[in-house]
Amino acid sequence: MGELERLLHAEPVVVTAGIEVLAAALGAQSVAVHRIDWRPPFGGTEVALAGLAASPKVAEANEIAIARLLEVRPHLVDVLPAGEVVPGLAGRTFLHAGPPLSWEQASGPMRGALIGAMLYERLAATPEEAASKLAAGGVELSPCHHHRAAGPMAGVISPSMPVLVVENPATGGVAYSTLNEGLGKVLRYGAYAPEVIDRLRWMERVLGPVIGDALRRSGPLDLRSLIAQALQMGDDGHNRNRAGTSLLLRAIGAALVESDVATVADRSAVYSFVDSNDHFMLNVVMAAGKLIVDAASGIEYSSLVTTMARNGTEFGIRVSGTGGRWFTAPAPVVDGLYLGSFTADDANPDIGDSAITETIGLGGFAMAASPAIVGFVGGTAAGAVQRTLAMYEITMAEHPSYQIPILEFRGTPTGIDATLVARTGVLPQINTGIAGKEAGVGMVGAGLVEAPMECFADAVKSLARRLSDDAAA
Amino acid sequence: MGELERLLHAEPVVVTAGIEVLAAALGAQSVAVHRIDWRPPFGGTEVALAGLAASPKVAEANEIAIARLLEVRPHLVDVLPAGEVVPGLAGRTFLHAGPPLSWEQASGPMRGALIGAMLYERLAATPEEAASKLAAGGVELSPCHHHRAAGPMAGVISPSMPVLVVENPATGGVAYSTLNEGLGKVLRYGAYAPEVIDRLRWMERVLGPVIGDALRRSGPLDLRSLIAQALQMGDDGHNRNRAGTSLLLRAIGAALVESDVATVADRSAVYSFVDSNDHFMLNVVMAAGKLIVDAASGIEYSSLVTTMARNGTEFGIRVSGTGGRWFTAPAPVVDGLYLGSFTADDANPDIGDSAITETIGLGGFAMAASPAIVGFVGGTAAGAVQRTLAMYEITMAEHPSYQIPILEFRGTPTGIDATLVARTGVLPQINTGIAGKEAGVGMVGAGLVEAPMECFADAVKSLARRLSDDAAA
Repeated sequence: MGELERLLHAEPVVVTAGIEVLAAALGAQSVAVHRIDWRPPFGGTEVALAGLAASPKVAEANEIAIARLLEVRPHLVDVLPAGEVVPGLAGRTFLHAGPPLSWEQASGPMRGALIGAMLYERLAATPEEAASKLAAGGVELSPCHHHRAAGPMAGVISPSMPVLVVENPATGGVAYSTLNEGLGKVLRYGAYAPEVIDRLRWMERVLGPVIGDALRRSGPLDLRSLIAQALQMGDDGHNRNRAGTSLLLRAIGAALVESDVATVADRSAVYSFVDSNDHFMLNVVMAAGKLIVDAASGIEYSSLVTTMARNGTEFGIRVSGTGGRWFTAPAPVVDGLYLGSFTADDANPDIGDSAITETIGLGGFAMAASPAIVGFVGGTAAGAVQRTLAMYEITMAEHPSYQIPILEFRGTPTGIDATLVARTGVLPQINTGIAGKEAGVGMVGAGLVEAPMECFADAVKSLARRLSDDAAA
Repeated sequence: MGELERLLHAEPVVVTAGIEVLAAALGAQSVAVHRIDWRPPFGGTEVALAGLAASPKVAEANEIAIARLLEVRPHLVDVLPAGEVVPGLAGRTFLHAGPPLSWEQASGPMRGALIGAMLYERLAATPEEAASKLAAGGVELSPCHHHRAAGPMAGVISPSMPVLVVENPATGGVAYSTLNEGLGKVLRYGAYAPEVIDRLRWMERVLGPVIGDALRRSGPLDLRSLIAQALQMGDDGHNRNRAGTSLLLRAIGAALVESDVATVADRSAVYSFVDSNDHFMLNVVMAAGKLIVDAASGIEYSSLVTTMARNGTEFGIRVSGTGGRWFTAPAPVVDGLYLGSFTADDANPDIGDSAITETIGLGGFAMAASPAIVGFVGGTAAGAVQRTLAMYEITMAEHPSYQIPILEFRGTPTGIDATLVARTGVLPQINTGIAGKEAGVGMVGAGLVEAPMECFADAVKSLARRLSDDAAA
């Protein structure tokens, strides 16, 4: 009996997709119904999605883009002053997280961080002076993402700050991020109290040079391997970086013992500073992420998401096939756990370049590897696994190195396809810190947020227009 | 309608326990059957189990014993020469893993380790001379477990070896273990080549003093907290100790930078030695375990298992209510993954005191926290979770500090009740390294093994006899 005959002899089975009322009516007549979770594409994207799906160019471009994203092997090689290495940071330019932003549009924590950078760079003596100079356009503001850099939360990078230098030995590509300051009152959460500025000066004078020296002594650190190991140890690479921080410190510790740079007390203080901050590795992962997404950018017709970033006012994405263009929407509010007496009323909308971790298959996409993270961002361990499973719906690949032990070493869902987001309605899951909305407050909590659909819908429509324009040309 | 009335009005439900033929007969008549997984107690233990179950003394004793086991907070405080601190190690005594053993009974790896210790202590110039002196009774052999100590694999401790010193600040209790040598050709796996002896001498001259100094500088290290954190980072505390080793190194790293003991090169070498050996933490966990099980020992009538240990020839257990008495059975063969070209034919039977980790709710009992361990010991991540779930059947408590994130932070199954093992037939799961059966070979693999039922059955019968003897007296 062939397949078709078997089908004709079997009991009929009803499969329903979409409208529940039909399934319910059959159910009421005691007919067994298999419901398929299906929704129509996001409104207004139907034609664009059909056009993109019909073109072999898109599939070919996506193959190239995801291959490039997966092949990068970032190595941490040095720490150097931002002004010496980050392109376009000469003169009075400050970098910030997310899509382009003016002082007028900037949220409280972004303003706080910019004010702090003015004080730190000695461009102003008081917060008031700093604010008025910033309002007068005395400093040019530019996204980190336009300068081979990524910064968590406000993501402000000013020329005197030391930055992590991450290289791709295969291509000579390079990317940067600041050094993580720890939790509590820190610049990236918009705090600018004297203790914040003093810490930044110590980071410039001691932390950066000592870690740079240790890295040069111990040699390039293979971050793909280190991150892969950290996932086996319960990190997600975004808000849980305890293992990665430990492995990083293990890798440079002997060099800190041996070094003749700085005093013994300074080197011991550097060791203790990193040891006391389990988020230290976050910025390293972000610099690696920037190297990775830049390698996958600019592949004509590809719908691979190469940037997800928030400036505290807007959430913005970029897609490989539409190059440098940002697709933005208002930054959403994070659903999370709050520190001390803070509540959701104190929270600024979502902020930071750290969603670059989700863009490369980590963070919210790797939460199944990191069940302990729910103590920081809320939810259950089972929920963390479900979030990862959902992300396979909207990604192009399973990462060959970033494996999730509890899913029998399945690779993390990696490489967001904007067309899959629009088609399925499944939004990228991001876990993140929450900044206080007032300048100067700092961190108020941590939680989970979804990227806004509008960004993906606009990107899909733009990509479809490019495709049809080119076909018509 | 009351509960009982509801029952009378409902459809009857058949629940079957035990013999499958009855359930199958009902199933054949289309009656829905709920099968309960039940087996009769292990043959010969029925009367003993009934006697113990009927006595409130046993339940009371177990409450005390498990409370003592759970309340210990071990602190790692120092590293000192075994001969100076381990009780009863003066003169020509060597300690070994597992229950008491003579040279004649000793397996290949145990003989190899004893020969190595003879060479290391300069009591013999050649392996042949060492073997003949050992055969002539030139050295007294005594179990580590009789001397507040525990040692992995052969577990040989000789007077010149440095030992980890773990204290209970609440009681002044103390326990010891050697420092872990790393993998490959090492004494504990029965190797005694010159490189093995040279490493032991370096550990005595450099590693021990430098780590001891670092611990005194950084202060007592709270191991309960450290182990709890390591479980959240994918350790099981037995064969996966990558996180614990990382956290230990983080805790003493600044002191290694600051120290003025030894040369900079020596301190850097110590850092790199620990960094290169992810099993370094195992011996620390074992010393903590020895402190914990000793605190729960000697509670009259308690059926809590306080020792599971193997000498390579026999597997032995001790139970709180029967004090120092060992219940032994032939050591089983481990089912596992083999290194290189080794096969099961090369494997020695199970060996080592490291099953102390399982005795305190870690190792095979905590494998759900450590899915990545299956890459080392074999099996699947789902299987690792199942092993932990099975251990809740035979344990007295869920550990309040050792939590398993993926099980929504449920505490690890802790405190084996020998009566539950005999009653359910569920055997304690141990994950372990595998030594080559020939002296001098070293490690050949790692895998999983079950403790032999005979030990538990004998312990249960012995405990029941004590109870009835006392009642009759």
